[in-house]
Amino acid sequence: MNFYRLLVGRRLANSEYEDRKIGWAEGVPAMGLDGLGSSSYGPEAALTIMIPLGAAGLAYIGPVMGVIVALLVILYLSYRQTLLAYSSNGGAYAVARANLGENAGLLAAAALMIDYILNVAVGVSAGVGALVSAVPALHPYVLPLCLVVVVVVTVANLRGTGEAGWLFALPTYLFIACFIGAIGWGMWQVASTGGQPVPVEPPPPFAAAAIGTASLWVLMQAFASGCTAMTGVEAVSNGIGSFKEPVLRNAYATLTIIVAVLGLLLAGIATLATFYHIGAMHQTEDGYQSVLSQLVAAVAGRGLFYYVAMGSLLSILCLSANTSFVGFPRLCRTVAADAYLPKAFAVPGRRLVFTVGILFLSGVAALLLVGFGGITERLIPLFAIGAFLTFTISQAGMVVHWRREGGHPVRLAINAIGATATGAALAVILVAKFLEGAWITLLAVPVVIVVLKYTARYYERLADELREVGPMVVKQLLPPTVIVVAEEWNRLSERAVKFALTISPDVVAVHLSKLEGPEGEADELAVRERWRKDVEAPAAAAGLNPPRLMLIPAPFRQFHEPLLRLIDKLDADAPERAVAVLIPETVKSFWWQNLLHMHRAGRLRRKLLKHGGPNLTVITVPWRVAREPYPG
Amino acid sequence: MNFYRLLVGRRLANSEYEDRKIGWAEGVPAMGLDGLGSSSYGPEAALTIMIPLGAAGLAYIGPVMGVIVALLVILYLSYRQTLLAYSSNGGAYAVARANLGENAGLLAAAALMIDYILNVAVGVSAGVGALVSAVPALHPYVLPLCLVVVVVVTVANLRGTGEAGWLFALPTYLFIACFIGAIGWGMWQVASTGGQPVPVEPPPPFAAAAIGTASLWVLMQAFASGCTAMTGVEAVSNGIGSFKEPVLRNAYATLTIIVAVLGLLLAGIATLATFYHIGAMHQTEDGYQSVLSQLVAAVAGRGLFYYVAMGSLLSILCLSANTSFVGFPRLCRTVAADAYLPKAFAVPGRRLVFTVGILFLSGVAALLLVGFGGITERLIPLFAIGAFLTFTISQAGMVVHWRREGGHPVRLAINAIGATATGAALAVILVAKFLEGAWITLLAVPVVIVVLKYTARYYERLADELREVGPMVVKQLLPPTVIVVAEEWNRLSERAVKFALTISPDVVAVHLSKLEGPEGEADELAVRERWRKDVEAPAAAAGLNPPRLMLIPAPFRQFHEPLLRLIDKLDADAPERAVAVLIPETVKSFWWQNLLHMHRAGRLRRKLLKHGGPNLTVITVPWRVAREPYPG
Repeated sequence: MNFYRLLVGRRLANSEYEDRKIGWAEGVPAMGLDGLGSSSYGPEAALTIMIPLGAAGLAYIGPVMGVIVALLVILYLSYRQTLLAYSSNGGAYAVARANLGENAGLLAAAALMIDYILNVAVGVSAGVGALVSAVPALHPYVLPLCLVVVVVVTVANLRGTGEAGWLFALPTYLFIACFIGAIGWGMWQVASTGGQPVPVEPPPPFAAAAIGTASLWVLMQAFASGCTAMTGVEAVSNGIGSFKEPVLRNAYATLTIIVAVLGLLLAGIATLATFYHIGAMHQTEDGYQSVLSQLVAAVAGRGLFYYVAMGSLLSILCLSANTSFVGFPRLCRTVAADAYLPKAFAVPGRRLVFTVGILFLSGVAALLLVGFGGITERLIPLFAIGAFLTFTISQAGMVVHWRREGGHPVRLAINAIGATATGAALAVILVAKFLEGAWITLLAVPVVIVVLKYTARYYERLADELREVGPMVVKQLLPPTVIVVAEEWNRLSERAVKFALTISPDVVAVHLSKLEGPEGEADELAVRERWRKDVEAPAAAAGLNPPRLMLIPAPFRQFHEPLLRLIDKLDADAPERAVAVLIPETVKSFWWQNLLHMHRAGRLRRKLLKHGGPNLTVITVPWRVAREPYPG
Repeated sequence: MNFYRLLVGRRLANSEYEDRKIGWAEGVPAMGLDGLGSSSYGPEAALTIMIPLGAAGLAYIGPVMGVIVALLVILYLSYRQTLLAYSSNGGAYAVARANLGENAGLLAAAALMIDYILNVAVGVSAGVGALVSAVPALHPYVLPLCLVVVVVVTVANLRGTGEAGWLFALPTYLFIACFIGAIGWGMWQVASTGGQPVPVEPPPPFAAAAIGTASLWVLMQAFASGCTAMTGVEAVSNGIGSFKEPVLRNAYATLTIIVAVLGLLLAGIATLATFYHIGAMHQTEDGYQSVLSQLVAAVAGRGLFYYVAMGSLLSILCLSANTSFVGFPRLCRTVAADAYLPKAFAVPGRRLVFTVGILFLSGVAALLLVGFGGITERLIPLFAIGAFLTFTISQAGMVVHWRREGGHPVRLAINAIGATATGAALAVILVAKFLEGAWITLLAVPVVIVVLKYTARYYERLADELREVGPMVVKQLLPPTVIVVAEEWNRLSERAVKFALTISPDVVAVHLSKLEGPEGEADELAVRERWRKDVEAPAAAAGLNPPRLMLIPAPFRQFHEPLLRLIDKLDADAPERAVAVLIPETVKSFWWQNLLHMHRAGRLRRKLLKHGGPNLTVITVPWRVAREPYPG
């Protein structure tokens, strides 16, 4: 426990919650990293599709990214409106549930959960890809590095998003400065050389010979892959609850900065790739270099600037997973509060973050990374579906919202255009990526929805079962028959019998013989004699009803079966009286003590609780090994 | 649980124990397999030492095995006397403890435990070695095959030794028939050809050229390795408790048959190896063949007989591990009954065998097999130490026994010769095998002894702590203050409050607010109002002391801290009254239900028991999810 405390810090009080809310200046690093980071893998993914075209593919990257940037602008306008309308919780789940009903809400929740999990996997593996690109010697260690990053990000988030905030701002603004700078310098080179810039470090040649024209299918594929660049845009609406006042202004500013920087990066990368003749390489290739690595090297060479820029990109990409760690536990908390997920997701842990959601997220993402060998590209087909499904449902929900509100034709139109555009993009992605793995998401979403619904049904039935109406009925409050389970007569069993005498005049001590097997035989006469002398006599002398002793054989060396039979008999004899079984239990302070005890008390309690009737109560009388005062 | 039942069978009653004892005819297979099986790896190990000598090594195998057979005869006579003197428990631990004191007993116990564990590892890997020798295609799978055999033997033993008896007799007698037959036939060939037998299948040539003379060091090594052939001899004295009447006659007969067959095999193998020019091969060599495989092939060819003989050998070797599974749990039980091992070792399980001992044995043996890669030879240096240490201590104990008894000079002399001979052999083994791994055993034995002693000290202190003297003191039997922990008001908390009212007039219900974190805020007024109406009013109307409601904030979202503070306060206010905390708990029937609950009740119970004072008792009021009658 001390190790855990060292790892995640002291337990925070509820009262410290408000201090942990953030403004727009912190909002950009906290929520924008997913969006900013995706600028590195969106264009790269589109270019990867065009590898077979060789240099000829570069003719198409401009138009493809142009369509994507246009889509981004539409999304921006749509989400501004979502923020306006849902300024306390603007996540797709909340919007869809409010406007389109339970099923649409669950669909959005399932898509969003999958999206968040994939974002961790894609973000981390892209970050490690950038690192490997800079330090090729690390190439064989892609998967272990990915897992290390997941562990580090998980621990940081278990400490709390707020506290780790200072880690976010520096690399974020460094990243923005480096890449806006590199792209600006590159653009200047392009302009000043009349479109014939000379690369400082020439990019590797294209592996394939140039092929004249791209088929529509390749373009669809490139578009579908490039769309992953937009996956961070919904983050602000999902996390709006973490802004401090003025909430709306903070949210607007955050969204605008994120989208503006992202748009500039996407457009700049596409332009420079065209003029500097930069194509993608397969990640499995030896000597692999990412598109951004080639681009910065071509524009500025492999000097200090290159390493600072790639370092900031690495940090950004790793921290982009962090955006999921902010969003996923919050989403699960909202869904769990509506009883669609286990309650544990809804309870803030030691550091006021939703520990269960964080651990679940990192666990599933780690499994994915292991399953896919730590290579981003293979995860991308799974990734874009969830994001665009979420976009579409959320915008559609907003359309219904404005229709209900009435009198906002422009707003309705903007969200309708957003829904249509993202819906169309979703269709393209589905068709283009179906065989590559999109079908997995399509299978996973309904499975998640079914799990969510069954969970809700379980809680509903449990609540029905437990629901109490009207005042308590107080009648027949007879003291219970107390059964004291004793293996031997010692200070612990004496304590148990004395406690039993304080709560009921009807105490039965049960001594089970033959528990230790065929050869372990207690001397029954001695046991009875001792009971008479040490228990019955003093109890009678004090004017109490003396506790009876029953010696019951346990022919199968199990406690609970003979006890359950006895309880059944007592129940039948006096159905109006409850039965309480009193179990003496040694309580251990150190783990190794557990190896030296039989844990019979715990097993007996579990068995009795599971198999006993509604009249049965179990009482634990503890003996703290080596910590009890003498005499007890 | 149903799977476990299918695996190991129904639970046996104590009364079925006597039926499971065995006679001499079953004793030979049950206890002799270790000894009989060791005939295959003893000579092999001695010959392995002589590999560098080439064919010249054969000149020495006869004398070396002659010394070993002579030692075997001395051991036989010694152990007959042990059986006579200790006819209820003749194990080395019992003999040493009775005659030489606690430390010698523990030394014997530690050596014997290590010996038993190593016997499983060596037996199984020798069995698999024989299989691989017959089917060389299996050579790459030595380790997995070893682990499969361990699992199979473990499951068979969890079912019970008695029940699996029929598995023992057939392969045992088949083995004896095959190998006595093969050796007899080989001897006849040797005799009839004047010492120049023609092998049906010539053994592989020696890898090394013949070297004239062996150094004393090589002979010591060969003797030390060959001594492993004797490791099964103590089994009868350890297992004497499992014979039915007449115990002594059954034990004598069993020991005589085992030693006679073992002696014949050892002498025969040494003779035939010499005349047929059979040497050992390294197990790591491709095309490895064990000495017995070469021998049977040389005498009888690779026909049906070869495969039947090797099949019986394989079964014997695997079952020789079974001898440990009979002995080790019994030994641990005896040691645990003296409180040197955790009590769990002393309790018979479902099938009247000592389940914990069996699982411990197979677990450690499996770890050893994995650690040594499943190769027998590397384990042998570790093996012989434990056995010969046990022999020596046991015989020395017998010497003391006869001196105490007086008037048995011949018996005393026999055991003294036995102790001296095995002690001398132990010294040779120690010197010869020290660097090869014997030092590991020498380190392990004291470690085991320390663990055994610390265990005994723990139990002794616990017993001292709990020891009760004199009659129970009955005074101040006031009913406890009962704290009912309620998260919400429902049928379960109603049940808890009603139970509390039956055992005490002083009931406090505690409702912890802010458990769900900063945003989960209960409506305190509504909670109080409901309590007044639904609980206090009916209780007062029934003439009871109405239970109080306390709303206590849990600023750190933990149950136990505010409760422990409240308990401290109640203790201080009324130190003469016990405090009982009543925890309502939902009881689950299926594993998946556990995923949907917070397990707060269990965590709270553990925390309270651990940190509460001696006056604290914990009461569990259960609600069996989906199994309670309506209305409850």
